[in-house]
Amino acid sequence: MAVTIADRYRAVREATIALAAPLAAEDQVVQSMPDASPTKWHLAHTTWFFETMVLAAFDPAHRPVDERYCFLFNSYYEGLGDRQPRPRRGLITRPTLDEVRAYRDAVDASMARLLHSGAAPEAIDRTELGLQHEQQHQELILTDIQHALWSNPLRPAYRDAPASASPSAPPIEWIRHDEGVVEVGHAGRGFAFDNEAPRHRVFLEAFAIADRAVTCGEFADFIADGGYRRPELWLSDGWAAVRAEGWTAPFYWEQRDGSWWEFTLAGMREIERAAAVSHVSHFEADAYARWAGARLPTEFEWEQAAEWPLPGRVWEWTSSAYLPYPRFVPLAGDLGEYNGKFMSGQMVLRGGSCLTPASHIRRTY
Amino acid sequence: MAVTIADRYRAVREATIALAAPLAAEDQVVQSMPDASPTKWHLAHTTWFFETMVLAAFDPAHRPVDERYCFLFNSYYEGLGDRQPRPRRGLITRPTLDEVRAYRDAVDASMARLLHSGAAPEAIDRTELGLQHEQQHQELILTDIQHALWSNPLRPAYRDAPASASPSAPPIEWIRHDEGVVEVGHAGRGFAFDNEAPRHRVFLEAFAIADRAVTCGEFADFIADGGYRRPELWLSDGWAAVRAEGWTAPFYWEQRDGSWWEFTLAGMREIERAAAVSHVSHFEADAYARWAGARLPTEFEWEQAAEWPLPGRVWEWTSSAYLPYPRFVPLAGDLGEYNGKFMSGQMVLRGGSCLTPASHIRRTY
Amino acid sequence: MAVTIADRYRAVREATIALAAPLAAEDQVVQSMPDASPTKWHLAHTTWFFETMVLAAFDPAHRPVDERYCFLFNSYYEGLGDRQPRPRRGLITRPTLDEVRAYRDAVDASMARLLHSGAAPEAIDRTELGLQHEQQHQELILTDIQHALWSNPLRPAYRDAPASASPSAPPIEWIRHDEGVVEVGHAGRGFAFDNEAPRHRVFLEAFAIADRAVTCGEFADFIADGGYRRPELWLSDGWAAVRAEGWTAPFYWEQRDGSWWEFTLAGMREIERAAAVSHVSHFEADAYARWAGARLPTEFEWEQAAEWPLPGRVWEWTSSAYLPYPRFVPLAGDLGEYNGKFMSGQMVLRGGSCLTPASHIRRTY
Amino acid sequence: MAVTIADRYRAVREATIALAAPLAAEDQVVQSMPDASPTKWHLAHTTWFFETMVLAAFDPAHRPVDERYCFLFNSYYEGLGDRQPRPRRGLITRPTLDEVRAYRDAVDASMARLLHSGAAPEAIDRTELGLQHEQQHQELILTDIQHALWSNPLRPAYRDAPASASPSAPPIEWIRHDEGVVEVGHAGRGFAFDNEAPRHRVFLEAFAIADRAVTCGEFADFIADGGYRRPELWLSDGWAAVRAEGWTAPFYWEQRDGSWWEFTLAGMREIERAAAVSHVSHFEADAYARWAGARLPTEFEWEQAAEWPLPGRVWEWTSSAYLPYPRFVPLAGDLGEYNGKFMSGQMVLRGGSCLTPASHIRRTY
Repeated sequence: MAVTIADRYRAVREATIALAAPLAAEDQVVQSMPDASPTKWHLAHTTWFFETMVLAAFDPAHRPVDERYCFLFNSYYEGLGDRQPRPRRGLITRPTLDEVRAYRDAVDASMARLLHSGAAPEAIDRTELGLQHEQQHQELILTDIQHALWSNPLRPAYRDAPASASPSAPPIEWIRHDEGVVEVGHAGRGFAFDNEAPRHRVFLEAFAIADRAVTCGEFADFIADGGYRRPELWLSDGWAAVRAEGWTAPFYWEQRDGSWWEFTLAGMREIERAAAVSHVSHFEADAYARWAGARLPTEFEWEQAAEWPLPGRVWEWTSSAYLPYPRFVPLAGDLGEYNGKFMSGQMVLRGGSCLTPASHIRRTY
Repeated sequence: MAVTIADRYRAVREATIALAAPLAAEDQVVQSMPDASPTKWHLAHTTWFFETMVLAAFDPAHRPVDERYCFLFNSYYEGLGDRQPRPRRGLITRPTLDEVRAYRDAVDASMARLLHSGAAPEAIDRTELGLQHEQQHQELILTDIQHALWSNPLRPAYRDAPASASPSAPPIEWIRHDEGVVEVGHAGRGFAFDNEAPRHRVFLEAFAIADRAVTCGEFADFIADGGYRRPELWLSDGWAAVRAEGWTAPFYWEQRDGSWWEFTLAGMREIERAAAVSHVSHFEADAYARWAGARLPTEFEWEQAAEWPLPGRVWEWTSSAYLPYPRFVPLAGDLGEYNGKFMSGQMVLRGGSCLTPASHIRRTY
Repeated sequence: MAVTIADRYRAVREATIALAAPLAAEDQVVQSMPDASPTKWHLAHTTWFFETMVLAAFDPAHRPVDERYCFLFNSYYEGLGDRQPRPRRGLITRPTLDEVRAYRDAVDASMARLLHSGAAPEAIDRTELGLQHEQQHQELILTDIQHALWSNPLRPAYRDAPASASPSAPPIEWIRHDEGVVEVGHAGRGFAFDNEAPRHRVFLEAFAIADRAVTCGEFADFIADGGYRRPELWLSDGWAAVRAEGWTAPFYWEQRDGSWWEFTLAGMREIERAAAVSHVSHFEADAYARWAGARLPTEFEWEQAAEWPLPGRVWEWTSSAYLPYPRFVPLAGDLGEYNGKFMSGQMVLRGGSCLTPASHIRRTY
Repeated sequence: MAVTIADRYRAVREATIALAAPLAAEDQVVQSMPDASPTKWHLAHTTWFFETMVLAAFDPAHRPVDERYCFLFNSYYEGLGDRQPRPRRGLITRPTLDEVRAYRDAVDASMARLLHSGAAPEAIDRTELGLQHEQQHQELILTDIQHALWSNPLRPAYRDAPASASPSAPPIEWIRHDEGVVEVGHAGRGFAFDNEAPRHRVFLEAFAIADRAVTCGEFADFIADGGYRRPELWLSDGWAAVRAEGWTAPFYWEQRDGSWWEFTLAGMREIERAAAVSHVSHFEADAYARWAGARLPTEFEWEQAAEWPLPGRVWEWTSSAYLPYPRFVPLAGDLGEYNGKFMSGQMVLRGGSCLTPASHIRRTY
């Protein structure tokens, strides 16, 4: 029997609550850096998204659960009025976690009524967008709480350690692709964000791409070979960051008695040499590639090379800047702010990570 | 029957818990500015003080409740090793509030045993110092939480509003004092901090001092007369602050429909014209005094003029810099860091406020 | 008769001196912002480039004019050792302007000897690169001194005002281009920087491009229509800059009695409505295009559309990030740092401006 | 024959020009830190002081040499309108040095006419104040240019090295003073700034004071004994500065091959162990005193102990905050801003240095 949108709604929303379950109320309110958000804020913001984008638009009987929440939990939609500045989200001690949970329950009840009463197709599309949005925030909950727990000198763990990966990785194979005009971007009927479209043509010169991600062991070799002390390997802004911030290894790595350890959601652990390296910046990925005698793929090379189903173990940096596709048109109304206005000064990540919900991974994402 | 040190210990410690009672766990973990501390940190730090300064020194059987707490809850004692940087106290989500309460209970139990078993006089002196220290932190809990709640756009209240003060204040009377050599500083047997001693002589020129504090109504008159727009009323650094930070009124004041409102522990409330003004900086007090054709008293003028019992409604700024008295000798050992090393760049406040525990007010404080 | 490289060397070097001639010694030493350089530094740095990249490599008899100049006047070549930090170039009061002129004379004399004695082809290529480099700095001298003079409240002029442009601009015509695979990048024998190569293929979807630049009058219309107050017109980082820095017009514009004035090299002048607008950031260009119902061209659209000879009145923003072309290979040795390492976080400008030497403009630049 | 005010005016003004003589125009325009001023600015500001405070008030025929100079060269007088922000004084490349010299000449000519034509007593008092003010700036010219030359990696010298001091200093003798009420502050007929008055009584406890300044050799011993690594020697804010800014020695000191060198107006030179140490902050002086088992004197102890004539080799830190004396009344009018408004957050220096003009040293200064 088919999974209904109502089923999917409930499953995604429950998954979010399950992610927060191991955390204390105190863990969920703190903001450990300006770019991160508290767990409680994620819980409330994703709820606000459904309330504002679905209930307010399609449920005539809906009244705001609390009119002040739009100020507190709007992320960046200029069209929806003023809002709490992002670096000050950690000051929202009230509503408390219990009150935010009650907010979720109230919106979930209204959403269930709407979806069971035969919602309009547009309402279902918006609901699907809201679920994709919540899945993005599920990943952010984990990356943000990892930083928050790392910021505590006690270095508490979020969960137990998973079983180890295999002790060694196979040698890299280089997969060759011929030159030619190819179609890229999202096509077809499944969900995709507006910035994955429209499908369009690009010319690719011939290229080769590795068949697996770089491992922690390989990255440790890069460090041992002076990777963080050799300016010729780095982009200029990257080298400036290395010097200004004293980079000597990926963000969560620490050297202890000659070995590399890493802060993970399971606490401090020795790196696994065969596991894919993660938490590296675009600058570090670029420098590694130059050291290895290669370069980062463009986003379209990556997209052509991606096998389906995607392994999805780590997000992968490309050499492409985040820019609109030809004929890109943002969504209408306030939702047009979802993606379009961020298309400057960022590089494209592709794929997904072990923190990304599996149903959220697509080749064009 | 006399109040024993054990009775007094229990009373002070319970008063701290009572202060935190109206707050949610989330309220108690957040740090709203680098100079403030979370409630939970105050609860743990005052406990760490007894554990380190009393139990570790005088109870041979004592073992640290958790060895990592010295790093987390040491405030500034260089002699006791590295510690969590002050602006990062808000990142200590663990230990949780419940764990901190358990820490308090464990230390209280050990302290009770020690005090009931006939502690050495020095242990009792140290306990008394710890209680005075905890009373200082009781006041800080309230001032810090006031800032934290103010930082939340919802402006939640900590408590209900107290009954109003009388509608008008009597005219100021100026009390004259003759010139002469007087003795200042703490003398006698009651407790005093090391910086209140030694008692010594100063020469005071003749002066007059007002018999009551400045009221909110008087301060509103200063604002209405352009007080914040007239550089000639301000010290140079004060005027720089007025311009750089856009001061137009005391920190917690806001104008609404032509009236002045103030954020208090009871939430936003219209100012009471007859109440003493509070939360003004030294620069604002100095500018007000110049506007009123007066000046701030020196700390010794204040001390000479103070009537016993002190009304203690607001802390009062003096024109004196915070400097050591002649022949000042800090306490021995780590406690020597308690006061001495802060004697630079600060001005002297005298008196106490409605947030200061009554048993904590002295004429030389 | 052909222009020899020695002739060209002398002409370019003299042009630089002519640019500095209207300036006082004091004008030439000051650095008005961290990203700008003093005129005197430009004079010395371009000289250092010839000394290091040509004389040191190809003239066995050459000895450094002053060994300390490599530290002072190296711009960013990590391979050539430590150097004066860029934001501190304004602190180099010594060598004085006269000493820097003597430095230029000494290097010019050595270069003339080398070029007249039959220099090796590689030495001539390096000399040509140095001249192109000096032409880049000629433009920087003018843009940097414009900022320095603007920073002086007296707003002194560098030169007299040029004759006015025509009073009105013709309507914009949109030139259509069909879709297809095209070749882009530098090909052929004339000089080009390494980042203009290699020539490669890209697929362009059909597009149309305006036949002239946006005028000051059109930009003033954008402002009058609330362009700087409407977040929906801006990229997110652009809107953040508008708010954080209070942008209300292009950098050098000021409103006086209802008219727009602009600080130019000829001092403060009323804008000319028919003249091409300049000194706008990528964010402003992007917002203007969105307001006008268009978008910025990609760099390859721009390159396809460019007619030869280029008008070259203003640099034009494209929507392309500055990234390496496929198979891009930096120059060998220290010169490899010239362009490659800056390929991150910047957008591509194409064309040239009225400050760009005419012999320096190319379609692929 | 008596020295007339006109003679004295000419002598002080010529001394300023003589101080600037060894400097290039480029040296005189640069501002090497926000708190320093360019030499050219000092030359113009002291001239502006005479123009504004004397000529504008007492010479009915006087017209401003250039009306824009009041904006450029007013230091901090709020009553005289807006002015160039202090950290941007280095951007004033125009008027050029030659134009500033012409400004000085024009004002000097007017002042000479005024002083020879029988100026009013108040005009003469103001002239005397202006000369004292210019002598303060003579000292600032040297301290500011020392920082500017130090900021240049070439470390150029301003002048030749003076003859060495004697190789060893005599042992310190402690001069005892009895307790008692004493009179302090300026009395009598010679010139004094408003903040040296009024004369008033203070009570001093008995104290002893060293008969000579601390030497470089003694300070080097303090460093060798870990002075900069022992927090117990420092005030809290001082220790924070040591850690935040990485202090390991006085500002201009550098270690070379195990010896201490110092940047002086004669360039880098090895320290002379018997010479008085200079360029130490109040925090360093305080820490040194604590290390040596002593303390800094209060300003009144210093004043009582000072023998006349004062040796005046180095300014000496006291433990007194800079605060008004009892019954202090600032000068009337704009000159009231000269001293009064800076009375917060600073500590008192007493004496004078080898950079202070000899005729400028007083016991109460």
